[in-house]
Amino acid sequence: MAVTGSPELLVVMGASATSDQTEHVLARLAEQGIDARVQRGREATVIGLIGDREQLALLPLEGFPGVESVVPILKPYKLVARESAPDPTVIEVDGRRVGDGWFGLIAGPCSVETRAQTLETARAVAAAGATWLRGGAFKPRTSPYAFQGIGVEGLDILREAKAETGLPIVTELMDPRHVEAVLDAADVIQIGARNSQNFLLLAEVGRTDKPVLLKRGASTSVEELLMAAEYVAKEGNDRIILCERGIKTFETATRYTLDLGAVAALKMETHLPVIVDPSHPAGRRDLVLPLARAAVAVGADGIIVETHPRPEEALSDAAQQIPSAEFGAFADEIRAFVALMGKQIG
Amino acid sequence: MAVTGSPELLVVMGASATSDQTEHVLARLAEQGIDARVQRGREATVIGLIGDREQLALLPLEGFPGVESVVPILKPYKLVARESAPDPTVIEVDGRRVGDGWFGLIAGPCSVETRAQTLETARAVAAAGATWLRGGAFKPRTSPYAFQGIGVEGLDILREAKAETGLPIVTELMDPRHVEAVLDAADVIQIGARNSQNFLLLAEVGRTDKPVLLKRGASTSVEELLMAAEYVAKEGNDRIILCERGIKTFETATRYTLDLGAVAALKMETHLPVIVDPSHPAGRRDLVLPLARAAVAVGADGIIVETHPRPEEALSDAAQQIPSAEFGAFADEIRAFVALMGKQIG
Amino acid sequence: MAVTGSPELLVVMGASATSDQTEHVLARLAEQGIDARVQRGREATVIGLIGDREQLALLPLEGFPGVESVVPILKPYKLVARESAPDPTVIEVDGRRVGDGWFGLIAGPCSVETRAQTLETARAVAAAGATWLRGGAFKPRTSPYAFQGIGVEGLDILREAKAETGLPIVTELMDPRHVEAVLDAADVIQIGARNSQNFLLLAEVGRTDKPVLLKRGASTSVEELLMAAEYVAKEGNDRIILCERGIKTFETATRYTLDLGAVAALKMETHLPVIVDPSHPAGRRDLVLPLARAAVAVGADGIIVETHPRPEEALSDAAQQIPSAEFGAFADEIRAFVALMGKQIG
Amino acid sequence: MAVTGSPELLVVMGASATSDQTEHVLARLAEQGIDARVQRGREATVIGLIGDREQLALLPLEGFPGVESVVPILKPYKLVARESAPDPTVIEVDGRRVGDGWFGLIAGPCSVETRAQTLETARAVAAAGATWLRGGAFKPRTSPYAFQGIGVEGLDILREAKAETGLPIVTELMDPRHVEAVLDAADVIQIGARNSQNFLLLAEVGRTDKPVLLKRGASTSVEELLMAAEYVAKEGNDRIILCERGIKTFETATRYTLDLGAVAALKMETHLPVIVDPSHPAGRRDLVLPLARAAVAVGADGIIVETHPRPEEALSDAAQQIPSAEFGAFADEIRAFVALMGKQIG
Repeated sequence: MAVTGSPELLVVMGASATSDQTEHVLARLAEQGIDARVQRGREATVIGLIGDREQLALLPLEGFPGVESVVPILKPYKLVARESAPDPTVIEVDGRRVGDGWFGLIAGPCSVETRAQTLETARAVAAAGATWLRGGAFKPRTSPYAFQGIGVEGLDILREAKAETGLPIVTELMDPRHVEAVLDAADVIQIGARNSQNFLLLAEVGRTDKPVLLKRGASTSVEELLMAAEYVAKEGNDRIILCERGIKTFETATRYTLDLGAVAALKMETHLPVIVDPSHPAGRRDLVLPLARAAVAVGADGIIVETHPRPEEALSDAAQQIPSAEFGAFADEIRAFVALMGKQIG
Repeated sequence: MAVTGSPELLVVMGASATSDQTEHVLARLAEQGIDARVQRGREATVIGLIGDREQLALLPLEGFPGVESVVPILKPYKLVARESAPDPTVIEVDGRRVGDGWFGLIAGPCSVETRAQTLETARAVAAAGATWLRGGAFKPRTSPYAFQGIGVEGLDILREAKAETGLPIVTELMDPRHVEAVLDAADVIQIGARNSQNFLLLAEVGRTDKPVLLKRGASTSVEELLMAAEYVAKEGNDRIILCERGIKTFETATRYTLDLGAVAALKMETHLPVIVDPSHPAGRRDLVLPLARAAVAVGADGIIVETHPRPEEALSDAAQQIPSAEFGAFADEIRAFVALMGKQIG
Repeated sequence: MAVTGSPELLVVMGASATSDQTEHVLARLAEQGIDARVQRGREATVIGLIGDREQLALLPLEGFPGVESVVPILKPYKLVARESAPDPTVIEVDGRRVGDGWFGLIAGPCSVETRAQTLETARAVAAAGATWLRGGAFKPRTSPYAFQGIGVEGLDILREAKAETGLPIVTELMDPRHVEAVLDAADVIQIGARNSQNFLLLAEVGRTDKPVLLKRGASTSVEELLMAAEYVAKEGNDRIILCERGIKTFETATRYTLDLGAVAALKMETHLPVIVDPSHPAGRRDLVLPLARAAVAVGADGIIVETHPRPEEALSDAAQQIPSAEFGAFADEIRAFVALMGKQIG
Repeated sequence: MAVTGSPELLVVMGASATSDQTEHVLARLAEQGIDARVQRGREATVIGLIGDREQLALLPLEGFPGVESVVPILKPYKLVARESAPDPTVIEVDGRRVGDGWFGLIAGPCSVETRAQTLETARAVAAAGATWLRGGAFKPRTSPYAFQGIGVEGLDILREAKAETGLPIVTELMDPRHVEAVLDAADVIQIGARNSQNFLLLAEVGRTDKPVLLKRGASTSVEELLMAAEYVAKEGNDRIILCERGIKTFETATRYTLDLGAVAALKMETHLPVIVDPSHPAGRRDLVLPLARAAVAVGADGIIVETHPRPEEALSDAAQQIPSAEFGAFADEIRAFVALMGKQIG
């Protein structure tokens, strides 16, 4: 039984690969100074490579003749991997914490529409025990004919809401040209689902000193989400909260398919806090609470919920916003599940 | 404002439909004795039909020239719709109940492999408070080279397990030719995910007097699952439990994507109990408990969990089975969440 | 550079696996007489196993503590793999061929509804140069209220259509209890998409001597489809035609998402002929021809198309059936693309 | 039979909606000056609304109590809809055309890596008859450790390639801060799949006077893609080419699932040209040609293909790039299919 150094990448040469093709791969690896071990067999030849993650990432091995597949043994992410940190990460803003036993109850309107609507919502969610206030000044909307947010004016309103309630502000950044303005109002910068693989924007927030709430895209895999977080961390900012908010599948009974299995899997893979947005996958008010409870029970570190004083007047996502007046009861139910999980809202 | 009878189906004639095409549709409807109302507009003409669900289902309106879309207003299912029953359905077997506040804790091996393995598991889950025993005698396996179950011999072992523990038996029926044998051992007949649209098998169990546990297929929509249940109910058997067990998506971090939003949506749509299988979507042991807790919290009426005395010897689904010895602690945790939901295991 | 026998399966022990856990895996492998090679490294330990495919398939290695993943090196299918046959398989019935340069033009009604409708269609498609006649006597329908096919009476009509036109008959088998009746009428037994993983039915047709047209299920992967074919082949029947007919995705602009990439990939993986059903993914008549042309161009060995004398009277799939009277023009266009591919319809 | 103006939106009040809830919806509509027609029936009440698309888009009707669903009758896009233009749109740059019978053969490297590599590729594809040259200076990569493009230096190289070969340049814009630099080099601005719903970037290119090649995102629906194009068109730039490049599904045999049904559907819905990228969904060289042929046959207005002088040295997408030396044969085969479709490369 041979015991040697472990490969970080395996290259499988197909059944019909010639030995010239195998030699060609090996020659190229030798040129790059990469240590390779070959196991030749009846139906396949497997080459194990030992090298630096970055060095291996740049080698186009799938492109070589005779190569059937390339199997990574190591995870492609590093800074965000659970192994990189001794303890789970806690994100703290103004004494309000998310992660490692602290459950974030983040609530507020989908969009900042008016001063009155935002302040009314902020007061309601603060009274109900929310820890952070969410609200979009810039809104990504599928239709160019839909309400697009009120922009910088909305940021001013959010600042006022914070001044009054003391709640830290979570708001979305959509454009690198808005970084300064958003940083000025936000305590936590949200990167929305449609920008979860906007790599230049990720690098941009990686160079700020504000925590980042990174939403999973509708077709972003768990691994891709972790790689997106790695973009942020690589620039120096490791205060990242991941957020599951539903993926696209064939199912139309809900707006998106909330993937709580991904939350459980993420908790195994990363030291970063993972929260859940139950509002967008629900797409309708009556499903938000069941999904929020399930998020707590699966082990999420928080939820982010849309609320509105009068949802039927909301300019976006009207169907799924919880009336502010009902948010107290909502929060009470969530609190009971958080307690059962041995966590605290704080 | 015209107030008239409500359409059950809408036919939208596209912008480029000619009036001859519209007249043609109307003439055909008149022939069939279907009441139709037309609204002609600038960009589309909408025809509202009023008729019997079955009568409308047989009309191939999508096939007519000029027809852009056919929009059903009524749900295509009837017997399983929430409106069809005054109260949520409770499925009771030997005094053990599922539905309407009763939470079913169903556990047991993936496959019945041996008498010893099955009895040992049965005793363990009974001791832990499980209400029904699951176990497959016939096993659908992706590979013809994998273990296929031990067949009728397994049914005998399940009977023995019931005799000893008193737990009602849930076991899978895969083939209409096995109905008699399976009925003889099963208290609840399971229809597996791969047979969730095997309509002849559904009709077959619809003609039995045993409850049916109907699993959702990996690409079956909520509506299709309800239609599958309607097949069973239409034959006279309305003792049906629906079971979410994960759907196929692009995500590979879990074996299947558990769709708890579908559970929440199903609870709104049907009077039937809805349970969750957290084992198959997890695909690995350490994700089963988080998903099981989430299932309770989303409002499921039960869970069905795979357990094995020594998972590493299991002949199927080894990675996801919970060791029997750990099932007591598992059940305790579930029990706390069930209590918080105001339900009881019974 | 060590050169040894090649592993057929790799077991990756995670970063946090203890050496006891690794020893435990190795001890178990030794017990089973499986040859194992270990490579220990900084972040993972990889164990390469050499053994018989069936032997390895029965080992529940994912279930062992410390095991992070199990990576198969060999394909799980054997009989249907391209390497198993020197040449591409040709399926011939009454001199009409599919595979290896022979393109099958299979057409006919979705359902056999009446004698007149079926004979009229059969004559039209025969005149247009179709090589086989399709038609369903038993129909899987999502709704129990929809037309379910006319059953055995339909088989008689198909026999009559064959007697008159000479076209071999392709018809669906849905239930193992119908094998005898269907065999009596069918030249090619179709296994529908919803039964593509009905393993007992697959084994049943594997024991017949008629060719099998195996449709891919709406969520069946390429590998699973090949495994389904392997079920048939393992019983002794290797006259199998695979058929892509669209998968379920988030997209609703078409009824299913036709996956022509899967056709191209299948042609690389297997010696079996691969055909395409353009009718079901289209879901509407005007998309059938473009998809059929694309199927030819991607390299499919045939197409199976739904036609009806008067689609607007069709009892199933009305929207997507091609009027028989237009099938001649349809076939002419297909013929030009088949010729450009260097194949012939025959 | 009542004949009236046609609704543009239908609001379905559920079976359990009270008449107060219906009156509440109607009162709100009246306030907004929207014309509404009610049809009350046994199981549902349907309200048909007539109004301006934008006005209706802002009404949060899903949010009202009692509302079960909101069914749009009109398409949500307008400027890009087929009905908005008398003829299919042709995009012409330097006399090279795409659309309405003109087939675009766009080829070039995935990334601009070096001057030599780019010029060598440009010459090869020009010699083979390509009409436009593609090449990325800025590259979106899943991993922050992968090659990210050489940026502005790449734009200079592309300018040189154009000067030498005369081929118009297609290159990607990833960041609104690069608009000026990219506009300076690009003849056609590519918006990549990951930015297909980056609405601020879409609006930005909508304000330029260069044609836009808009790639479909991996989970963007046909309707969402058309809405993304509508963002561009709404700003005044209607020179848009849509590009299908594969969507994310459960299938892993190909890198993405190429959705040619979407191409066929788009050709029915819009006057804009629709092209196909066969390289990214293939993910491996040997599948690119079959998919490219299928793209021609389904009716696409062009293809965009990755080529490289020595793919095994490529810094991105090595596995799927076609060796430049083989591109002539590739182009010849495509040309034959384009001719059979009655189109010309020009």
